[in-house]
Amino acid sequence: MEKKIKTKKDEDLISWYNETVTAADLAEFSELKGFTIYKPYGYAIWEKIRDYLDDKFKNLGIKNAYFPLLIPESVLEKEKEHVEGFTPEVAWVTMGGKKKLDEKLAVRPTSETSVSYAYSKWVKSYRDLPLMMNQWNTVVRWETKETRLFLRGREVIWQEGHCVFENEEEARKNVMDLLMVYKEVLEELLATPVIIGRKSEEEKFAGAVETYTVEAPLPNNFMIQSATSHLLGQNFSKVFDIKFLNRENKWEYAHQTSWGISMRSIGAMILVHGDDNGLILPPLVAPIQVIIIPILNGTDDKKIIEYARDVEERLKKINIRAEIDDRTIYSPGWKFNEYELKGVPIRIDLGKKETEERLISYKIRVNGKKESMKFDELNKFTDLLENIQEEMFQRAYDRIKSQVKEETNKNEFIKDLKDGKAIVKAAWCGKEACEKKIKEQTGAVSRVIPLEKEELLDKKCIFCGKPAEFNAYFAQTY
Amino acid sequence: MEKKIKTKKDEDLISWYNETVTAADLAEFSELKGFTIYKPYGYAIWEKIRDYLDDKFKNLGIKNAYFPLLIPESVLEKEKEHVEGFTPEVAWVTMGGKKKLDEKLAVRPTSETSVSYAYSKWVKSYRDLPLMMNQWNTVVRWETKETRLFLRGREVIWQEGHCVFENEEEARKNVMDLLMVYKEVLEELLATPVIIGRKSEEEKFAGAVETYTVEAPLPNNFMIQSATSHLLGQNFSKVFDIKFLNRENKWEYAHQTSWGISMRSIGAMILVHGDDNGLILPPLVAPIQVIIIPILNGTDDKKIIEYARDVEERLKKINIRAEIDDRTIYSPGWKFNEYELKGVPIRIDLGKKETEERLISYKIRVNGKKESMKFDELNKFTDLLENIQEEMFQRAYDRIKSQVKEETNKNEFIKDLKDGKAIVKAAWCGKEACEKKIKEQTGAVSRVIPLEKEELLDKKCIFCGKPAEFNAYFAQTY
Repeated sequence: MEKKIKTKKDEDLISWYNETVTAADLAEFSELKGFTIYKPYGYAIWEKIRDYLDDKFKNLGIKNAYFPLLIPESVLEKEKEHVEGFTPEVAWVTMGGKKKLDEKLAVRPTSETSVSYAYSKWVKSYRDLPLMMNQWNTVVRWETKETRLFLRGREVIWQEGHCVFENEEEARKNVMDLLMVYKEVLEELLATPVIIGRKSEEEKFAGAVETYTVEAPLPNNFMIQSATSHLLGQNFSKVFDIKFLNRENKWEYAHQTSWGISMRSIGAMILVHGDDNGLILPPLVAPIQVIIIPILNGTDDKKIIEYARDVEERLKKINIRAEIDDRTIYSPGWKFNEYELKGVPIRIDLGKKETEERLISYKIRVNGKKESMKFDELNKFTDLLENIQEEMFQRAYDRIKSQVKEETNKNEFIKDLKDGKAIVKAAWCGKEACEKKIKEQTGAVSRVIPLEKEELLDKKCIFCGKPAEFNAYFAQTY
Repeated sequence: MEKKIKTKKDEDLISWYNETVTAADLAEFSELKGFTIYKPYGYAIWEKIRDYLDDKFKNLGIKNAYFPLLIPESVLEKEKEHVEGFTPEVAWVTMGGKKKLDEKLAVRPTSETSVSYAYSKWVKSYRDLPLMMNQWNTVVRWETKETRLFLRGREVIWQEGHCVFENEEEARKNVMDLLMVYKEVLEELLATPVIIGRKSEEEKFAGAVETYTVEAPLPNNFMIQSATSHLLGQNFSKVFDIKFLNRENKWEYAHQTSWGISMRSIGAMILVHGDDNGLILPPLVAPIQVIIIPILNGTDDKKIIEYARDVEERLKKINIRAEIDDRTIYSPGWKFNEYELKGVPIRIDLGKKETEERLISYKIRVNGKKESMKFDELNKFTDLLENIQEEMFQRAYDRIKSQVKEETNKNEFIKDLKDGKAIVKAAWCGKEACEKKIKEQTGAVSRVIPLEKEELLDKKCIFCGKPAEFNAYFAQTY
């Protein structure tokens, strides 16, 4: 039976999302509450992101390594703010085999502490710096909020980078380098426009001096954090004693950064790009870029299949991820629905006519256009996929421009946020007390303070009336 | 100061190993007993193995996925033999945040149980089969034996594959396909000769019908299991109810396999190939294949460095992983020692003479040969690296032939195993009781029953005198 998405995307984004992720066979919840099984079609998208980023990291001189899954309680609790931020949601190992352990071990919620512990042994001189490492792993956070596939789970697949530098300048550069890499992966690979900038004091990472974020605006005026890059300053180096002899032969604490992106970025992409028929995947991350469906008639099947194989081979030769679905247990109609649901960028239908005339009939997922070309023109598919990628980004970009509302009136600010009518940009004081009250009254929080210096929309804070420090974007979030 | 390996490899293999792994900066123990930090130079070798295998898996139709880190006790304990094999060494999560959990959760020691749980929901008809998935992850086993870098740790970096099939024949084919892939990765990529075959009843995987193994003989006559491929039969499918409607429209339990290789394979490679000066890495997995050392004299430095860059660029153009070490804080002598220790296959020294005459002077790590060639001949380095790879395999292969001793005398069998004088091959009954006694008396166990049918070395079991079933290799192991 054909699977259908019952919920309209415009009417209820998150119900549409839950249905779509499951129907497209990307992932599902496991038997253990809050934990996810990433199925091959969903995991393959992450592999594309990983390969793309891994190259970028290596070009920046960052090397992969691996630090232990478990962190002793005494190590995790060294940095005060960090403890407060993470301890409430740590999963604890208390038994090894049949024995109770002397000290509880945290399943890593993130590895700043254990990496800092190691770095303190490795860093002795400015000659040992910078140290720039990354690890691809999973972390566990005992979420109490409702978990959602890709967006929030108790186990998160991500990468976490950890660097130490001689001075703040180099550390700041690294924070910005990574912020830009994350913007690229979202916009270029996932075709998902983002707004980049700084997090407020209230929203920053526990233990950081400053947190920078890549925020994706969603069609329902929510915004979603898709990657973060933290300036840790000397907060961890002081408690973990990462000290080095500097160029003046004096002991100095190192300057640290950390940064990460998770599978949540895939969730953002799905929310931005799908439609009522299911997923729409940007060609660069689509596990299948072109699906070929032979339309059999019982008499010309052998020829049609043969032609389909020619088409597949030709596309593979120009490095396009093409597949044939020649299963006879499913009808062409069932397959059309299936690959639409799975968001495959281009579908090629090959029947008797196409085979005889060596034609290609194809349909583009994002805009529904049907076209045809000659077999010998198949090389054009490379450009076609590039254009689809570009069109997907542009569509999302244009929509976002219409979603952002600049406000100077407090009542409208509150009302628009509460009702989710817009992503709101306003002049703001940035204070924690003010942010807490905004959250109480609207359910929304500040998402990002734009990176580029902007003219203030108002001299006063939109909410508390004290002097404004900067403009900020406010929105609901998942 | 130059690092040196104090222990001679011939005199004490494992002390030599511990020193070498640390000195070459591959890995070190973390602050948490039994857990390892894999440093960039060590982790990069694993990345080469992963990339190689990932392609092989995909060619066999196997897809990557991800299953949760934690497994509820009730799921882990469904398969009786499996429980007995793994429960004694499980790390248990008992708290989430501040709350005690209702049910203990195992940090996965391996995922047969949770994968089977998922497969039981996904498999309904023969049309859903085969299902072939793999995951790259880590597992935790609370080892009580002494832990060793790469060889045995409480957290293991590996891949685990899990497949279900319609019938035993397909399952057996899968077990053999993977066994061959593992043999290839050991022999072709890691230049480490192996003996493949079946494990005894006593040594097989907990819950398997049959376990197949890839065993690497070491220079001290130990053997080390480097990868395994299990025929699980219907053991798990019966307890997890993985049932499908077969082609005769009857319900049937599926036939399963699982298989894995870990970073232990890197340990085997190191033990086989190093020498008293440190590591020797096979070119195919060496993170640096060619290290270029400029020999500066204070007057021609600019030209020498420029020439070194030309050499590096030329090598990179033909896809050789070349690096220059032009740090001035270390002497050439220090660098020679360092890269020898790190097992870099070829070192190029470039001084004034080489620069003026556009020559390449190089030294080959495995045989110590020094040669030179013209700059324009640099393309030959591709062949040179291939030859080194081949020579490394051949050296190890020839040595192993001299290590294996075929025995028919019980006293000699016991003595040789006890003293570690040889890898012993003998006719054997294969019974668990007999194997337990062999272990008691010699400390050694059966490592592998050769895959190919062989003529029995004796009609009687070498140890208990009952009728022999097959020949087997016996050795000590780590």
